[in-house]
Amino acid sequence: MAVGEIQWSDLAPVRGLRLGVAEAGIKYPNRKDVGVILLDEGARVAGVFTQNAFAAAPVILCRDHLSKTSEQRALIVNSGNANACTGEVGVADAIKTCEYLADILSVDPKQILPFSTGVIGEPLPIEKLSTAMPSAVKSAEENAWEMFARAIMTTDTRPKGASVSFEWQGDTINISGVAKGAGMINPNMATMLAFVAMDASVSDDILKDISLLAAQKSFNRITIDGDTSTNDSCVLIATGKVKTELDSKDDELFLRILDSVTKVYQSLAQQIVKDGEGATKFVEINVEGGKSAQESLNVAYAMAHSPLVKTALYASDPNWGRLVAAIGYADVESLDAQKVRVWLDELLIVDCGGKASQYTEEQGQVVLDKECFSIRVDLGRGSYNESLWTSDLSHEYIRINAEYRS
Amino acid sequence: MAVGEIQWSDLAPVRGLRLGVAEAGIKYPNRKDVGVILLDEGARVAGVFTQNAFAAAPVILCRDHLSKTSEQRALIVNSGNANACTGEVGVADAIKTCEYLADILSVDPKQILPFSTGVIGEPLPIEKLSTAMPSAVKSAEENAWEMFARAIMTTDTRPKGASVSFEWQGDTINISGVAKGAGMINPNMATMLAFVAMDASVSDDILKDISLLAAQKSFNRITIDGDTSTNDSCVLIATGKVKTELDSKDDELFLRILDSVTKVYQSLAQQIVKDGEGATKFVEINVEGGKSAQESLNVAYAMAHSPLVKTALYASDPNWGRLVAAIGYADVESLDAQKVRVWLDELLIVDCGGKASQYTEEQGQVVLDKECFSIRVDLGRGSYNESLWTSDLSHEYIRINAEYRS
Repeated sequence: MAVGEIQWSDLAPVRGLRLGVAEAGIKYPNRKDVGVILLDEGARVAGVFTQNAFAAAPVILCRDHLSKTSEQRALIVNSGNANACTGEVGVADAIKTCEYLADILSVDPKQILPFSTGVIGEPLPIEKLSTAMPSAVKSAEENAWEMFARAIMTTDTRPKGASVSFEWQGDTINISGVAKGAGMINPNMATMLAFVAMDASVSDDILKDISLLAAQKSFNRITIDGDTSTNDSCVLIATGKVKTELDSKDDELFLRILDSVTKVYQSLAQQIVKDGEGATKFVEINVEGGKSAQESLNVAYAMAHSPLVKTALYASDPNWGRLVAAIGYADVESLDAQKVRVWLDELLIVDCGGKASQYTEEQGQVVLDKECFSIRVDLGRGSYNESLWTSDLSHEYIRINAEYRS
Repeated sequence: MAVGEIQWSDLAPVRGLRLGVAEAGIKYPNRKDVGVILLDEGARVAGVFTQNAFAAAPVILCRDHLSKTSEQRALIVNSGNANACTGEVGVADAIKTCEYLADILSVDPKQILPFSTGVIGEPLPIEKLSTAMPSAVKSAEENAWEMFARAIMTTDTRPKGASVSFEWQGDTINISGVAKGAGMINPNMATMLAFVAMDASVSDDILKDISLLAAQKSFNRITIDGDTSTNDSCVLIATGKVKTELDSKDDELFLRILDSVTKVYQSLAQQIVKDGEGATKFVEINVEGGKSAQESLNVAYAMAHSPLVKTALYASDPNWGRLVAAIGYADVESLDAQKVRVWLDELLIVDCGGKASQYTEEQGQVVLDKECFSIRVDLGRGSYNESLWTSDLSHEYIRINAEYRS
């Protein structure tokens, strides 16, 4: 199940980058479950990783390698096994992964970033993975984003990609990327992997800034079930093929690139929510009028995480009572319920501590019957606005998560 | 659906208190949906109420009346309508409820406490309620706890009662009470009502202390779905029929009563979890070794609220990966994953950052196949322990909450 129909659209090619896939048979036979991204010399890489204290072995390796050099030469991703909670053996396996690929590519193992997604707590079948590496490398070509996006899927029902291009001083800058998600999606990027690349040349510091700022407005603003996984990673690559000399945040180009990367990230993040486990609704939650960004976010998350709100969304039930109950128990000091207003899309449903006087349930039903809509809250006590995207809680979610071993 | 079989056991009678019920037809015809508790002169009442900013009208009235006098003479409870988010009309209806009953009993309206549970945002059918009051009062008798417990049920599948008695200086002190719960159960007492009475005489301050301390170790340590409702109330009555002159917390009797009230509260709280919406498992979560009580609680709640953990419990899946993922994203600063240990009952399943070396999934399956078990976590960084009780997340939960309009 997933919200809406999304067809794969070809992504703009990013010069200086090739993608390859292979069958390693890590969890299932006869499916592509390994992907590599090969980078020409000169590329720079930055990343944002899970905040989970049980960070998986590949995340530990990524952090270590990126702390030593941003000049990465390859990324390798396997699905079917997360290499998480696997102790010292898991770290050793992640190191071997990098060493094997570095050997094939004749680069330093520190220039390889490993990623894994799938079942937790099982040893990574490193022999299968290493056996598949040469054919993954051999298959690599410039614009194989879709193949790659499919190879990294787990419970995803469709591949996720997004692309933005713009002209700059007679050249075109392309920003393209793919992601996998489904379930366990939360701020701090739960069981999601995203790989986005642009062909601009960007300094290390600027690349890190863009990576963080864009993630904050996208992957850190989505939630399906409130869980945060051990493996989440979001990587931003600048291949440097378009010479731009972007060294300062005051540069106009900085804003253009930040805006474009944020758009790609947001598109991927929203595709992840729409393909959330068992999702039948896609809901944008806007909370405005908070005294601080944090309290606006608290209210947004209280609604997005409430199983009672989420089951009402699933039932297409305009149950404003559950919405105000969630707003009421969010962490907001001395909230004055009389000042709170709530809208479904443009329809005012709550004011003065209760149902809006003009509101009828028939009107609410029209909004809730849609697959995509927004819930807007005005707390009436300040000027801080925050938004996030979420989905509903369905029978299908229970079925997937009671049956799937993640 | 509910965990285990629980038969109603008769409660010890509390002298100075009578219970009555009636049919008001508030939501459904032909069911007892109004209950009254009539107190002899001399009784004292204290309460703990929802923290929700959208506190329902009856909660507002209870707080107001108890701030003026603890010498209450009657409690009136209706099911089928929560009189919540009903604005000024709702408050006026709650006032009328008290006035009508006060008139029948010839007491001051400030000596009446109103309670409502059921659908949110609909006006209370005050005429139906007032019409039923005389027969509720007329039917009142000393030990009609079960009838009363049934009248206040909503999606509960069974009435909930508990009783503790002990000897004191040649007399017997009885502590008995009932509760309703089901769904939306969380700390701060979500959509739960509890009414507990003892026949000891206790000063106002001591009664308030016992009410708070016992709630903290019981109703504020249960969670089903993380939601907190607008109507939750937990009331403690001392009828004063057994003269005890308990005025100080240093008194041995204070500890005896606190212990007994806590036992009654805990029994009721656990019955609520076992009868949680769609619950098929009852799980005690113990987190020890925290640097503070708060961080131990954060870890306990992270596990108890994780839909991925809860669906694994439902599936009887000993999925320790989801447990450590939840521990890892709980709000604990600089948690060292290597020091964390996790047990299912007495079975060590996680240490040194991964699966315990002796652990086999067959062993875990034996524990998860039980209806009731514990998950114990040692954070290995301090001496603070916290416990709470929770349930699983089942298809039945989705069905109830997608279909029932609360």
